[in-house]
Amino acid sequence: MSTLLQALRARLGEAGLLMGDDLGAYENDWRKRYRGRALAVARPACTEEVAHVVRLCHAHGVPIVPQGGNTGLVGGSTPDDSGQQLVLSLSRMKRMRDIDVANASLTAEAGCVLAEVQAAAAGAGLLFPLSLAAEGSCTLGGNLASNAGGTQVLRYGNARELCLGLEVVTATGEVWNGLSGLRKDNTGYDLRDLFIGSEGTLGIITAATMKLYPQPRERLTALAACASLDAAVALLALARRRAGDALTGFEVMNHASLALVARELPQLAQPLGPAAWTVLLELSDAESAEHARGVFEGLLEAAVEHGCVDDAAIAQNLQQAKAFWHLRESIPLAQAQAGLNIKHDISLPVSAIPAFVAEMDARLAAYLPGIEVIDFGHLGDGNLHYNVQAPRDVAPGEFLAAHEAAINEQVYDAVVRRGGSISAEHGIGRLKRDELAARKDPVALQLMRQIKKALDPQGLMNPGRLL
Amino acid sequence: MSTLLQALRARLGEAGLLMGDDLGAYENDWRKRYRGRALAVARPACTEEVAHVVRLCHAHGVPIVPQGGNTGLVGGSTPDDSGQQLVLSLSRMKRMRDIDVANASLTAEAGCVLAEVQAAAAGAGLLFPLSLAAEGSCTLGGNLASNAGGTQVLRYGNARELCLGLEVVTATGEVWNGLSGLRKDNTGYDLRDLFIGSEGTLGIITAATMKLYPQPRERLTALAACASLDAAVALLALARRRAGDALTGFEVMNHASLALVARELPQLAQPLGPAAWTVLLELSDAESAEHARGVFEGLLEAAVEHGCVDDAAIAQNLQQAKAFWHLRESIPLAQAQAGLNIKHDISLPVSAIPAFVAEMDARLAAYLPGIEVIDFGHLGDGNLHYNVQAPRDVAPGEFLAAHEAAINEQVYDAVVRRGGSISAEHGIGRLKRDELAARKDPVALQLMRQIKKALDPQGLMNPGRLL
Repeated sequence: MSTLLQALRARLGEAGLLMGDDLGAYENDWRKRYRGRALAVARPACTEEVAHVVRLCHAHGVPIVPQGGNTGLVGGSTPDDSGQQLVLSLSRMKRMRDIDVANASLTAEAGCVLAEVQAAAAGAGLLFPLSLAAEGSCTLGGNLASNAGGTQVLRYGNARELCLGLEVVTATGEVWNGLSGLRKDNTGYDLRDLFIGSEGTLGIITAATMKLYPQPRERLTALAACASLDAAVALLALARRRAGDALTGFEVMNHASLALVARELPQLAQPLGPAAWTVLLELSDAESAEHARGVFEGLLEAAVEHGCVDDAAIAQNLQQAKAFWHLRESIPLAQAQAGLNIKHDISLPVSAIPAFVAEMDARLAAYLPGIEVIDFGHLGDGNLHYNVQAPRDVAPGEFLAAHEAAINEQVYDAVVRRGGSISAEHGIGRLKRDELAARKDPVALQLMRQIKKALDPQGLMNPGRLL
Repeated sequence: MSTLLQALRARLGEAGLLMGDDLGAYENDWRKRYRGRALAVARPACTEEVAHVVRLCHAHGVPIVPQGGNTGLVGGSTPDDSGQQLVLSLSRMKRMRDIDVANASLTAEAGCVLAEVQAAAAGAGLLFPLSLAAEGSCTLGGNLASNAGGTQVLRYGNARELCLGLEVVTATGEVWNGLSGLRKDNTGYDLRDLFIGSEGTLGIITAATMKLYPQPRERLTALAACASLDAAVALLALARRRAGDALTGFEVMNHASLALVARELPQLAQPLGPAAWTVLLELSDAESAEHARGVFEGLLEAAVEHGCVDDAAIAQNLQQAKAFWHLRESIPLAQAQAGLNIKHDISLPVSAIPAFVAEMDARLAAYLPGIEVIDFGHLGDGNLHYNVQAPRDVAPGEFLAAHEAAINEQVYDAVVRRGGSISAEHGIGRLKRDELAARKDPVALQLMRQIKKALDPQGLMNPGRLL
């Protein structure tokens, strides 16, 4: 065992340092795109142990790959195959340090699973609104390192907007205590937001203070059929005007998305008939079920009059509301069943989305007849999952091998040309690192490299990711 | 004329470079605490000219002091008295570049006055919610450089939360085009939030894309009398629970604040009798005046039942609503009339405020009998203006000379001990630079200095401010 591993074992104990052949859960990413091999897996139990691990790695020149729940989609939290990188798992740092009801905030360690954080807030009668598909296994630290989005961004923002303060172990192994329950603090550079979204390349988030909100009295869900994406954008403006901040969800699904669900998951009821676009709306009401229903009915009537909605259904009870959401959330599952596909997690100004989709759909159809665009996502945030599926008579594996690069280039070119982002919520990691270097504003890239060099001069924090 | 000034004149023309004895408006700060002397005042008319000025100063090693509306409260935007610093005024960059209604965003240049930005949004049927006392002369660039707060933070956040993207001239004179209408973009480090609040020490903000919101149908205002600060905190929780995001204002005023207004501005009506604490609540309603009134009446009845409110008045019309706000906003004016005082713009977790105020009030009363604490501010954001006025029989000037340092130390000690901030919304500038160096977490200070050195290696951007 090397000097470094001996020193780690001495400080972390048996449970704190995993070695050997059985580390697959830490070495392979969730989407199974990257298989790596770790030097070892360190599992520190407290902030001081994290700092100690970082200082040891610093002294030995060993790269560190921080890891939360390992549910990331861009290969950002697993080691390369060199066997030289240490995985630093935050999975033992699971303490809920504090809940402050009067300040509507909680402080939790990085390894707390998102669903546990939600439950702790609910236990105190409050809402922690961050919510996404992996919430049963992703961790708060990973959510912050990747600035996670999810289904409640329209009203509550990304992980970034929900964070009040951080505790961070820097790249040189010092502890910055920036935990804070403050809503306002203008005392210098915004270090918090620099670490959020930096994907473990500048330091390691060990704990965070997060905002909590009142629990809404009632959550109500509806589906609406729109004849075009322009109509869906008009519905969004109308809904924001009439419902204000009560509008907490606005998801769109194109015709192909729900047709795919009907094919792959025929047991799921689809309350509305086929439409060019189906919108899922969610209202969160501070008053009562009756009030929420009144707002929804008024809104949908106005939308029908206004010509932007052709048909609509309001969920009659909680079970039906869940079924509506389940329909939306089943699209990725239906895609997985149908075989490999090319995913694009993109964002655009909301105003630019209809023209982008029209252009792209036409270009892809011309490029390869029979191609299927499974287009769905968070229209209220300008974020689409614009996924491309093989024509039904082409094997998905062959399709990807032959067309992935060309299709990515077409999609990302059009996104950047219209002022959009090639990664709205999933981050960069290894998957989009070259794409970022090629497409990001060169001045921004230079500033990012200067910051990286200033804060991690040895380049040991999650190397090869992001930059 | 030096080579630098000749080169500036050649590029900027007569209107773009001011020299001579008549520069007081650019050299002296708004509070009249700092009188400086500038090498000259450059007034570039476009981003490329700003970049050119920065490159010239870089080549000549001349420090730059960026300046917006010069309404800052901490001496951050005026030159020192050396006559060697160039003031770079953004006052000619006043173009409203774009309003995107469907995306609910606008892009404006740094020199646009805040009130003009508000008016442009209103002209498009939308709301730009940033609002503060200096809005008639402060500029968007200055608002962002100082991360301005104001009266609508409770619902809409600081300038930071309202910003989608920036255009920045870096310290080496390159242009970073980070203007963006995107709500979600996870492509690398958060440069936007690094420049926001950096007080011109890392680069110069030349334009910004800002979020817009639907105009509320109705704004309703009420005053409530509370017997204690604990009661006011309980009222805040109740109001958030019942009104949700419709609660857009929650300001508190202590007894001494309104007594001072009654003395200095007796013409202002005070609808409620004297109370330990008076709360101003504002509701913004997406539905109707009747709905807003119903929510307010229900809330205040519940608060009286609950025991946290003793008396209340809802504004009966717009004029009365304005009068309620005017009462709150007259406190600084009444203070100015009463003479010099010691201002503290502090924030604390909301839960920590009652104990802080009880402790501090008692300690100051013991320190100097007759001292008056004029305590008011944005309780919903945890932000108090905890200002200390001389005993009525002591001349304010003498009071400050004898006691300012000792009182600052007592107040800031208690703030930091309770996890608070010594500058909630005004920033650091020159006024609190030493205080920051003494009180900020040393690891944070070190990170800030590393970033400063990486992005401004010559140290020419607003030197002597913040760090």
